Amino acid sequence: MDLNELRRQIDLIDNDILEKFQKRMDLCLEVAEYKKKNNVGILQSSREQDIINRVTALSEDRYKDSAAVLFSNIMDISKNYQQNEINKGKNFIDKAPLEISGNSRVGCYGVAGSNSEEATRMFFGNEKEISFFSEFEDIFRAVDEGRIDFGVVPLQNSSTGSITQTYDLMRKYNVYINKMIRVSIKHCLAAKNTDKIPEIDGVYSHPQAIMQCSEFISKNNLSAIEYASTATSAEFVSKSDKKISAICSESCAELYGLEVLARDISNDAENFTRFICISKNFAVEKGADIISLQLAIPNEKGSLYKLLTKFSVSGLNLLKLESRPRHEGNFDVVFYLDFEGTISDERINALLIQLEKETTDFKFLGNYSELQ
Amino acid sequence: MDLNELRRQIDLIDNDILEKFQKRMDLCLEVAEYKKKNNVGILQSSREQDIINRVTALSEDRYKDSAAVLFSNIMDISKNYQQNEINKGKNFIDKAPLEISGNSRVGCYGVAGSNSEEATRMFFGNEKEISFFSEFEDIFRAVDEGRIDFGVVPLQNSSTGSITQTYDLMRKYNVYINKMIRVSIKHCLAAKNTDKIPEIDGVYSHPQAIMQCSEFISKNNLSAIEYASTATSAEFVSKSDKKISAICSESCAELYGLEVLARDISNDAENFTRFICISKNFAVEKGADIISLQLAIPNEKGSLYKLLTKFSVSGLNLLKLESRPRHEGNFDVVFYLDFEGTISDERINALLIQLEKETTDFKFLGNYSELQ
Repeated sequence: MDLNELRRQIDLIDNDILEKFQKRMDLCLEVAEYKKKNNVGILQSSREQDIINRVTALSEDRYKDSAAVLFSNIMDISKNYQQNEINKGKNFIDKAPLEISGNSRVGCYGVAGSNSEEATRMFFGNEKEISFFSEFEDIFRAVDEGRIDFGVVPLQNSSTGSITQTYDLMRKYNVYINKMIRVSIKHCLAAKNTDKIPEIDGVYSHPQAIMQCSEFISKNNLSAIEYASTATSAEFVSKSDKKISAICSESCAELYGLEVLARDISNDAENFTRFICISKNFAVEKGADIISLQLAIPNEKGSLYKLLTKFSVSGLNLLKLESRPRHEGNFDVVFYLDFEGTISDERINALLIQLEKETTDFKFLGNYSELQ
Repeated sequence: MDLNELRRQIDLIDNDILEKFQKRMDLCLEVAEYKKKNNVGILQSSREQDIINRVTALSEDRYKDSAAVLFSNIMDISKNYQQNEINKGKNFIDKAPLEISGNSRVGCYGVAGSNSEEATRMFFGNEKEISFFSEFEDIFRAVDEGRIDFGVVPLQNSSTGSITQTYDLMRKYNVYINKMIRVSIKHCLAAKNTDKIPEIDGVYSHPQAIMQCSEFISKNNLSAIEYASTATSAEFVSKSDKKISAICSESCAELYGLEVLARDISNDAENFTRFICISKNFAVEKGADIISLQLAIPNEKGSLYKLLTKFSVSGLNLLKLESRPRHEGNFDVVFYLDFEGTISDERINALLIQLEKETTDFKFLGNYSELQ
């Protein structure tokens, strides 16, 4: 047979498969209705295992693995469809519009002149009064206890990756993400009592900034000292009479009267940090198109694949998948997922209801968009 | 219809689907043979899109999404099967047994008394002479340049997660993982010139240890200072006449004559670190049952799902999925995957050949087992 004839035959077979598949879906919906009426759960893994065993027994040896994957997929697709039908009309979460007023109390990490302040100004404008916090956790606590309405913290850097502490705190505190912004980070080396790099006795900065400039630091034989933030490092250097230096932004160097000895010293020419704005209550802005979740799945063969099947079946696009330890003394993880969409979408609403039921450590972290 | 009758009908439909599916697989193998003979690539995404468009056009409205997922899966299964058939008999990598002799030169991170030394001793025994390196990268460079045969570095901690620097260095240097071990980490607070915690003026330790004990540090109002390793911190404290302290292991405190002021100060009661042993050449031990890969996938809808389909179709169990920035000034990532298996397995051999061809930034990182 030539290629065209082979393809024509495949198309004919696909027509048959499609027809049978749709009949199967109809029957599955009848099963779902029956179960709903008789209060039986959708998930019956013994029936699933029976089906896999039956079809692999009937299958040719060389296709047994493939047949098992195919029917496992078909059942995942059916279940997802059933769940969506059952969850239609139910509300996963009550929507509230995001309201920011002149009275909103706003806090961020670091001190005046920090990149966090810049992100906060981009969210709330230059006139806003900002409370500064010296620890990430203090911001989460202040938001959780209602002492501030909005808190701004970094989430990811394009060079060093996720700020894992922020992910862990999202798990610990009940807060929602309502905004995200990308800030371009330009690090410089700034000093006061010397203008010669070889004379420098120690460079102070935030651990993330030290990591982001590790190549510059090692090339110049500098020793790095961890400090609370890039801005407090600059402040510390400005008050010292030693030949020490700080890694900070140029505007921050200027703010504290330091001389810039080297510009753009990050390992990567382009360096961005994503900051998020968190609040105690769930609220969503118009145009929000990213949803973030936290969840854990069983440590079983194929469970991540089954999870992603749910997203795929709902036509959703995963933007990010990140794992963090569950802190139970083993290497079990919780996943953080970002995907495109809005909670007003009926399919997403149904999927969230389903995921909340079927996974552990489930937490809906917000629906927001990214300002650039 | 009652549940039994519905299930009987589903089983009958499944028989039909299975039969058609096997016929489709036969035809796909013919297509593969045709393409092989005529030197046409397996991957033809326009044909795939045509099939998806055709079946969704034929499908009932309510099943269009489901049909698209089903046929996308069927094609992934077929392609994977075709690739495995084509790659049978080819060798992804030449196997060599892991050989460690009395002359093997071994290096690890940190100094005498560090957790890295403990891991290295567990791999190579108490008599082995060890070279100590003060930076992770120095070890990778020494292995890459052939100055040592084996290097030992930490990879993950059960409390703080992945040691991201090690992942980034695995990407930068051409080395293989040949062993992994889990070491129980017990941190204590150790000092010399005071036995009262409130008197302590600063606690020195490795950034990872500081993170792992962050709750103890903040509860006791201590200020943490980053230092190269837990062991060098202990050494530094032993030489100082200030009331400073170190976070290190008890054996390390003893080694440097420090007094233990508090035991088991980690945030999590159980705290483990996984260490890996790396070498320049690929070598595999008997019983090796973990395979590690690095790869990047296109930033497209469903590409992660398609990747996991390949593992699922080959019956493989993913143990870990980790993402790290690609360092190109955007938020693109490379994935690190661990899965169960040995490269002697024909299906895995074929999958590796396929992944090397179809993904970017592909790197096979080794086949090894975990000692506990």
